[in-house]
Amino acid sequence: MRQVYMDNAATTALNKEVLEAMTPYFTEIYGNPSSLHTPGQLAHKAVANARQQVAKALGAEDAEREIIFTGGGSEADNMVLLGIAQRYQKKGKHIITTNVEHHAVLYTCQRLEKMGYEVTYLPVDEYGRITAQQVADAIRPDTILVSVMFGNNEVGTLMPIPEIGAVCREKGVFFHTDAVQAVGHVHINVKEMNIDMLSLSAHKFHGPKGVGALYVRKGIVIPALITGGAQEHNKRAGTENVPGIVGLGKAIELACGSIDENAPRMTRLRDKLITRIPELIPEVKLNGHPTERLPGNVNFSIKYIEGESILLMLDLNGIAASSGSACTSGSLDPSHVLLAMGLPHEIAHGSLRLTLGDDTTEEDVDYVLEVLPAIVKRLRAMSPLYHE
Amino acid sequence: MRQVYMDNAATTALNKEVLEAMTPYFTEIYGNPSSLHTPGQLAHKAVANARQQVAKALGAEDAEREIIFTGGGSEADNMVLLGIAQRYQKKGKHIITTNVEHHAVLYTCQRLEKMGYEVTYLPVDEYGRITAQQVADAIRPDTILVSVMFGNNEVGTLMPIPEIGAVCREKGVFFHTDAVQAVGHVHINVKEMNIDMLSLSAHKFHGPKGVGALYVRKGIVIPALITGGAQEHNKRAGTENVPGIVGLGKAIELACGSIDENAPRMTRLRDKLITRIPELIPEVKLNGHPTERLPGNVNFSIKYIEGESILLMLDLNGIAASSGSACTSGSLDPSHVLLAMGLPHEIAHGSLRLTLGDDTTEEDVDYVLEVLPAIVKRLRAMSPLYHE
Repeated sequence: MRQVYMDNAATTALNKEVLEAMTPYFTEIYGNPSSLHTPGQLAHKAVANARQQVAKALGAEDAEREIIFTGGGSEADNMVLLGIAQRYQKKGKHIITTNVEHHAVLYTCQRLEKMGYEVTYLPVDEYGRITAQQVADAIRPDTILVSVMFGNNEVGTLMPIPEIGAVCREKGVFFHTDAVQAVGHVHINVKEMNIDMLSLSAHKFHGPKGVGALYVRKGIVIPALITGGAQEHNKRAGTENVPGIVGLGKAIELACGSIDENAPRMTRLRDKLITRIPELIPEVKLNGHPTERLPGNVNFSIKYIEGESILLMLDLNGIAASSGSACTSGSLDPSHVLLAMGLPHEIAHGSLRLTLGDDTTEEDVDYVLEVLPAIVKRLRAMSPLYHE
Repeated sequence: MRQVYMDNAATTALNKEVLEAMTPYFTEIYGNPSSLHTPGQLAHKAVANARQQVAKALGAEDAEREIIFTGGGSEADNMVLLGIAQRYQKKGKHIITTNVEHHAVLYTCQRLEKMGYEVTYLPVDEYGRITAQQVADAIRPDTILVSVMFGNNEVGTLMPIPEIGAVCREKGVFFHTDAVQAVGHVHINVKEMNIDMLSLSAHKFHGPKGVGALYVRKGIVIPALITGGAQEHNKRAGTENVPGIVGLGKAIELACGSIDENAPRMTRLRDKLITRIPELIPEVKLNGHPTERLPGNVNFSIKYIEGESILLMLDLNGIAASSGSACTSGSLDPSHVLLAMGLPHEIAHGSLRLTLGDDTTEEDVDYVLEVLPAIVKRLRAMSPLYHE
């Protein structure tokens, strides 16, 4: 049976070229980058090189000072929110975010609320977007941080990041973006977009799991979330994950270097799914913005069916898909993103997310278009709610 | 030139068998363990299997509930200290530790002091040890945590962990041990030793960098340090580092399964260095306990010489060694461990740590014994402080 992996927003296959770059650092160049001897210094150089690759991919100015390696995107998000809150509390205790952020941001904001901070959750429109004007209107003298995701992990909607960046810069408020879903897939330049802080995760762009990075513009002080050794300029303790960091560097270089080639291809495949699915299946609704969305994201509500049953049937047919965020797939709650976009509860339960990767082919897309309508038809036939 | 790696306390080479176990999870079984589809569930099973391997190696009862995977040992230490402090502050705000802990514990304790907690730093004896009686005497009604390392990362001294565990259990105080240097090298059984919480790091026993684990006895509640997705039973957000976790599981199984074979061999090589170095080099002093020490640790103060110059000369001769903790090797401060053991400043600067690994051979030891005396002689000849 054909195997089609369409859950690249959950995680991606490691690029073989990336694995090749990592391999020597497991068993040959295995020193601790903090060590003074040659094996340590070779590892140190590899980490420094990866830092340059990340800085270059993001348009950051000073790799050594502005890029901090972390254990992943969630850690980076936690570090920004808790760190800025702690460090700049004398200026104020107000934070602005949106109601469709990843839980790494939302739940950390809730922790901050319990610690006496005030968080404004900007409501999104029906496409899952906020406007820069909403941000401008919400900024107060005691606002210390605006955190708005670059692209949504469930519905793929892109936020107007450059416009929000301009507003924040003008008002003198720090701007963080959780760009975990966007890095490697759309062009990002932190300088041009006035992004002060950015979180990313390697395994979302065919890099390794367990490693991420945080861009922090020079001059902004974020205290360590994990304290101990002096690694990462005292910003993140713990022996550096050298192979992981090397893999992140290589993966971001490869992904960001091929956006001009990959994004149009993926967008075309995405749009084929977006166009064909409603033609083949009645009573479906595209979630997220029709054009301002991540190149690889397709998300449909399929009325009268539980998301889980579609996933299981697709899986039986060799297709790996998702009903929303993988991080919450254990829970039976409807998607907070779909609810925030105004979908009613019963529809927010039945969404299907298909996310493409660098390796997705036209044949993969055609196979999904062949299999999916029959599955939906069969499940609807069993649904007491559905009457053709 | 012969290459001899004697910095295994800083980090170890990945065991090739471990790398083999990890490899399929990079490019083949690359699903997100939270995903419902088959690629996700295969990854989920691999993580669950690694959890069993860790639980078995530590003598934990309930892998699923008691083992939490983290991004490393420092994260695990931070999570315990900050988590217990936050969760049990109603009982009290007093924590007991020692003055020779790793900075992941010490600096996190200092953070807690700034947050209004009181920390007792038990002083060690000349060998770097505390006694269980010291712990018993320090416990107060408001004590919520005792955190004592298993084996010291600089001087290798083993703490009387079972005795401390018994005291804590009797007095009803939680007991955490940072066992980053000990796991895989000495026998540990959390049940028999009355250990409530234990931190470990894979790369210290020939596993991969960037992954660690925390054992937390069932019934103890530690809030997440990193919030977001529901991974690790809501204890640690972020997509699981599947290959890293698989590697940790395999490495702990291999290391703990061969302690009876490796530890005596390493102890013999260690003791050869400990015996021969003072015979070959005058005015050296063994740091740490002569017998109650990690099988792979050798630490000498070599009078009249800076630690760094020895390291550089050894490196030129193909020998990778350290002057203490790798995590602080960027700093010029003398070792807090050696100072705590009562060494004067000028001697605390000049220590040499040689740490053996599973792959260290008799020939490696002999090579060090051949090269080191000449280096010391040459450096002392240049030292204005030394007069033969």
